[in-house]
Amino acid sequence: MTDALAPGSTIGILGGGQLGRMLSVAASRLGYLTHIYEPGDAPAEQVAHARTKASYEDLGALEAFAKSVDVITYEFENVPATALDLLEALRPIRPGTRALAISQDRLTEKTFLEGLGLTCAPFRDIPDAASLIAAIEDLGTPAILKTRRMGYDGKGQVRVDGPEQIEAAFAEMRGADAILEGFVGFQREISVIAARGLSGEVVCFDPGENVHRDGILRTTTVPATLTGAQRTDAALLAGRILNALDYVGVLGVELFVTPAGLIVNEIAPRVHNSGHWTQAGCAVDQFEQHIRAIAGLPLGDGQRYADVVMENLIGDDMDRLPDLLAAPDTQVHLYGKAEVRPGRKMAHVNRITR
Amino acid sequence: MTDALAPGSTIGILGGGQLGRMLSVAASRLGYLTHIYEPGDAPAEQVAHARTKASYEDLGALEAFAKSVDVITYEFENVPATALDLLEALRPIRPGTRALAISQDRLTEKTFLEGLGLTCAPFRDIPDAASLIAAIEDLGTPAILKTRRMGYDGKGQVRVDGPEQIEAAFAEMRGADAILEGFVGFQREISVIAARGLSGEVVCFDPGENVHRDGILRTTTVPATLTGAQRTDAALLAGRILNALDYVGVLGVELFVTPAGLIVNEIAPRVHNSGHWTQAGCAVDQFEQHIRAIAGLPLGDGQRYADVVMENLIGDDMDRLPDLLAAPDTQVHLYGKAEVRPGRKMAHVNRITR
Repeated sequence: MTDALAPGSTIGILGGGQLGRMLSVAASRLGYLTHIYEPGDAPAEQVAHARTKASYEDLGALEAFAKSVDVITYEFENVPATALDLLEALRPIRPGTRALAISQDRLTEKTFLEGLGLTCAPFRDIPDAASLIAAIEDLGTPAILKTRRMGYDGKGQVRVDGPEQIEAAFAEMRGADAILEGFVGFQREISVIAARGLSGEVVCFDPGENVHRDGILRTTTVPATLTGAQRTDAALLAGRILNALDYVGVLGVELFVTPAGLIVNEIAPRVHNSGHWTQAGCAVDQFEQHIRAIAGLPLGDGQRYADVVMENLIGDDMDRLPDLLAAPDTQVHLYGKAEVRPGRKMAHVNRITR
Repeated sequence: MTDALAPGSTIGILGGGQLGRMLSVAASRLGYLTHIYEPGDAPAEQVAHARTKASYEDLGALEAFAKSVDVITYEFENVPATALDLLEALRPIRPGTRALAISQDRLTEKTFLEGLGLTCAPFRDIPDAASLIAAIEDLGTPAILKTRRMGYDGKGQVRVDGPEQIEAAFAEMRGADAILEGFVGFQREISVIAARGLSGEVVCFDPGENVHRDGILRTTTVPATLTGAQRTDAALLAGRILNALDYVGVLGVELFVTPAGLIVNEIAPRVHNSGHWTQAGCAVDQFEQHIRAIAGLPLGDGQRYADVVMENLIGDDMDRLPDLLAAPDTQVHLYGKAEVRPGRKMAHVNRITR
């Protein structure tokens, strides 16, 4: 623990949403203070020691923020590169900026993953309309056209079911760089929440089985329905990604389970919605695991003590809150967001099922 | 839930130590903000939305605090009565001031408990030296002389092993009102953490078995070694206390297990050190249970999912922190206190044993 952050140190968090909020709470358990940097609304500031409200173009604010903290982490992967460069010159950023750069761009990410020998859905770079026509011929339909950058929760994606939809699909990208992904016939979607410590040790939580609707995660269930071999594969491939990136922190890896093996859908260089179940199932949850990693502390062992179903409460799902608060075996986690909006993640519940 | 506090409301907490800190985190899970009132150091402010640093004699600060919050609770029972009167005129205080007044004074507390038909250690009021001589004759030795007010963690107590020690023991009280307690030969110490909601429902957590050293709690183990009948008795007597006080919130009840039945040692009208294990063993821990109660939300069901040993880290115990962070199945909760002092509670660990 010679490199460990001393209690009383301050962790800077880029982004002030629910992930930053739960990271801040986890940091407090380990005796750390947090400082939230967020241009917009920041429910995380309700449980943080300090908060900077400024844009990622405000170099003075970024510099003051960096100088007020001991290490910097982030709750989302779309931090602009110029801001990262400035911050990195002043304080360590964990996970590193390479993981961020790779995961900010679907093309770079998939190229990186295939370079590790992992399997992704077939994909083609789509710099222009002509390449989309060729790619559809090549990969067939259905296929999914996705912006290379800034997509999340199903945003920036459009499905192409036949050649007649090519023109409209391309127009929806509004000139943004895109990739086309071939269709994958999967049995189920799972994810692995994995962590790598400052000294290189890797710990994986048990894979969770995910259900999405309208491109947004609805539920994660542990244990996932998997064979022992699939569980091992999932952990090994997560470890390969972490080691290749010399990664420090928690990483979310979304996978498709297919008869031909596990296919990597995407990676997220941060704590992940599909890891929220760890709050009810593990001694050290994913948020604390991330803080332990970036603080140079030993990682939690990832042991799962309970079966859990995590459900997101999105928009009007909040109407069910009174019933959920009264339900047995159920943890409710509200995010402190003032306004309920359709499609907005407002809270989640962890139900212990065994 | 018609009386329930709406998400986004603010809970005022009197006291900014570790209990206020963990209450603040629990409040955030339910979408509430917190405002800490604390004259001294306040590690709770690191995870609170607002903080007032002022004394309990500062009526202006108290009034501004009350007006900035929706409901008031407390993490310790020695809030001065004048402050409580001012606050109570402006906002609801939960648990109520009657529970506070009773538990602030050992004589009043024991008289109240015996009035409910519960058994306490035999005791005598000690207004002067002559009454101490008479009480020692009456109750025998060993006996314990305790200040009526402001005692905690073994402070304000002195053991009397024979008549020759009476004079010195009385002098140690330094003129403070005191009581003498007769010796109780107990098999073990347990505590029940119980909660009562705004609509009167009562929920008890499983009793924990406590080990004290030098008057300070060292470990709590669940499950405690108890018969089924003893478990039932513990829950019933906690319920009786809660109902008699028309209590709202979490109450800690310390009990001696004796061959003749359960004897009430003392009650604490707040979350309690011996309930920290619930963080690792229950879907809703004692801190969230307290917030749910005072916010008018349904209570968690108290179900225990794991066997847990909670251990306090006191003073130099902090030297063991690196080992404890690396131990499997172990949660560490640091309190954010800057300075390690002998006898000071710095952190606790919850070890899941099954």
